Amino acid sequence: MIIDVHGHYTTEPQPLLTFRDKQLAGLADPMRKPASNELGITDEMLVKSVEPQMKLQKERGSDLTIFSPRAAGMAHHVGTEATGIEWTRMSNDLVHRICTLLPTNFAPVGQLPQHPGVPPKNCLPELERLAKLGFVGVNLNPDPAGGYWTDPPLTDKWWYPLYEKLVELEMTAMIHVTSSCNPVFHYTGAHYINGDTTAFMQLIQGNLFKDFPTLKFVIPHGGGAVPFHWGRYRGLAQEMKKPLLKDHLLGNVFFDTCVYHLPGIELMAKVIPVDNILFASEMLGAVKGVDPETGHNYDDTKRYVDQLAISDSDRKKIFEGNARRVYPRLDKRLNQLKEKR
Amino acid sequence: MIIDVHGHYTTEPQPLLTFRDKQLAGLADPMRKPASNELGITDEMLVKSVEPQMKLQKERGSDLTIFSPRAAGMAHHVGTEATGIEWTRMSNDLVHRICTLLPTNFAPVGQLPQHPGVPPKNCLPELERLAKLGFVGVNLNPDPAGGYWTDPPLTDKWWYPLYEKLVELEMTAMIHVTSSCNPVFHYTGAHYINGDTTAFMQLIQGNLFKDFPTLKFVIPHGGGAVPFHWGRYRGLAQEMKKPLLKDHLLGNVFFDTCVYHLPGIELMAKVIPVDNILFASEMLGAVKGVDPETGHNYDDTKRYVDQLAISDSDRKKIFEGNARRVYPRLDKRLNQLKEKR
Repeated sequence: MIIDVHGHYTTEPQPLLTFRDKQLAGLADPMRKPASNELGITDEMLVKSVEPQMKLQKERGSDLTIFSPRAAGMAHHVGTEATGIEWTRMSNDLVHRICTLLPTNFAPVGQLPQHPGVPPKNCLPELERLAKLGFVGVNLNPDPAGGYWTDPPLTDKWWYPLYEKLVELEMTAMIHVTSSCNPVFHYTGAHYINGDTTAFMQLIQGNLFKDFPTLKFVIPHGGGAVPFHWGRYRGLAQEMKKPLLKDHLLGNVFFDTCVYHLPGIELMAKVIPVDNILFASEMLGAVKGVDPETGHNYDDTKRYVDQLAISDSDRKKIFEGNARRVYPRLDKRLNQLKEKR
Repeated sequence: MIIDVHGHYTTEPQPLLTFRDKQLAGLADPMRKPASNELGITDEMLVKSVEPQMKLQKERGSDLTIFSPRAAGMAHHVGTEATGIEWTRMSNDLVHRICTLLPTNFAPVGQLPQHPGVPPKNCLPELERLAKLGFVGVNLNPDPAGGYWTDPPLTDKWWYPLYEKLVELEMTAMIHVTSSCNPVFHYTGAHYINGDTTAFMQLIQGNLFKDFPTLKFVIPHGGGAVPFHWGRYRGLAQEMKKPLLKDHLLGNVFFDTCVYHLPGIELMAKVIPVDNILFASEMLGAVKGVDPETGHNYDDTKRYVDQLAISDSDRKKIFEGNARRVYPRLDKRLNQLKEKR
């Protein structure tokens, strides 16, 4: 079985986007508020909307995608905390419906109603709701300010109530920023990658996993700059008198394979232990084109993993085993599905 | 000849640091202002202060270091524009004296008196002074706000007066942030690398080198996350209908080899054309320890370049030829030195 741990719902039906426009327009002019939270999106519309993803799963050879709302769509910095809560709930509900309709193709990960300057503990009601709905994890934004980075580092006690609940519920968190409202940062080209790099360095500086030994973070996009600068990070940890990175962080921190060329994935497999690498493509995501150097899509990352000079059992870990271990709720979900059949 | 394009003066004599303390204390309490700009640093003290760098040059086998004030010391966000101008001038003068005393070991690169929210054109007097003193380039900080990123992207007209003067003077700019006053960003572990990644993405989005075809930027630390995500950047440029990166940027943008492990340098040499790679170590810089995996210093980057499976002529480009081409004033300086002898 091949599990892609990083897919976003980037093919939302138009009524959802129209709702969001009206919701935000309503902040400026209450007359423009959406009349209702009922979007009128049918199950047929939902299934139809994810046909592109399912077509690619078949063509490229993956089975299941861990599926969450559009990352840039979270936009925690936009609107008010109240509009964010409503928007989050609505976005999560669509993902939940898709994953219920197509349980062998998709497993749900949720967004959180984070808001800049607002304590993360305000996310707990939505987090608990997600757990009841069978979500296997959440996307956790280390910069709800959308490129202005005004909230505390991830190791700050500010975040602890959220971590306590994640641990209690066995929910895994992917550390994923959203869009950028800072013109210096292109969202997928700079802000995403910087977010990954920044989070990892915060974790080096802190001792978060002493307090939360079972908390699990996935850092997407191959961990930002981290594998390329693995020597720098090992050296910085050493200067700070931290344990070796494998002991300090790698029991809790994992990287996905959203790196869109073979040399990048090869480097990753060379420096990051195989147990810490999870297959992912973010397909229908950041980079959709065909690489003229290979004739294949940039984001067809399975091809790169297939080409790695590693053992079959290691490849199976990257494709399936690690995902089941890092997302314990996913493993349970898949086992339950199997029993049902 | 082996040229290291990235060294900072991180072994400054105490009187310089004491001056800075008093200068900044003077902002709070004018009684504490330094009595004079005369630091009383003798030539002997300066030569003594760079003995560690010269020892490493000899031990590791490099000849000349392009030498600039401590990157984190620039701290453009600290104090006022006026204290910054004074501090910049003083820092540059010490570098100038060292490079005049030891011209075969060091060539000078300057810092600029940037200040958040202040037009970069205010740096022109110092830039012209540096050119007259024989500096071969400057460090250009894309985020004078020190981790809050409140100034415009590098492609904005805001920066154009500075670029016009750089081109006129044939000065090369290394894009290098300074320390971070934002607690989310560790300076050498996150802010530096993010600065590199961010700058490169800004350049992809813009068309800066259409307006400045001879402007030359060096992006340090291996270009941040860029080589690791080379597929992503090629794909994003493609989606934006930009030319191939080699045509869009690589006539003007170069990367150094401050990447502290062999797999990183190998990846870089695989995806970045050899003409765009400049040898550098940032020695006595960010990462000073010994890598337990190799028994050698992390920042002994010459060892990694020596191990690359490339031709001798390509290696010579990385060690010398590219630096002479990318820093035309350095080439002239070295030729003049040769004639003198």
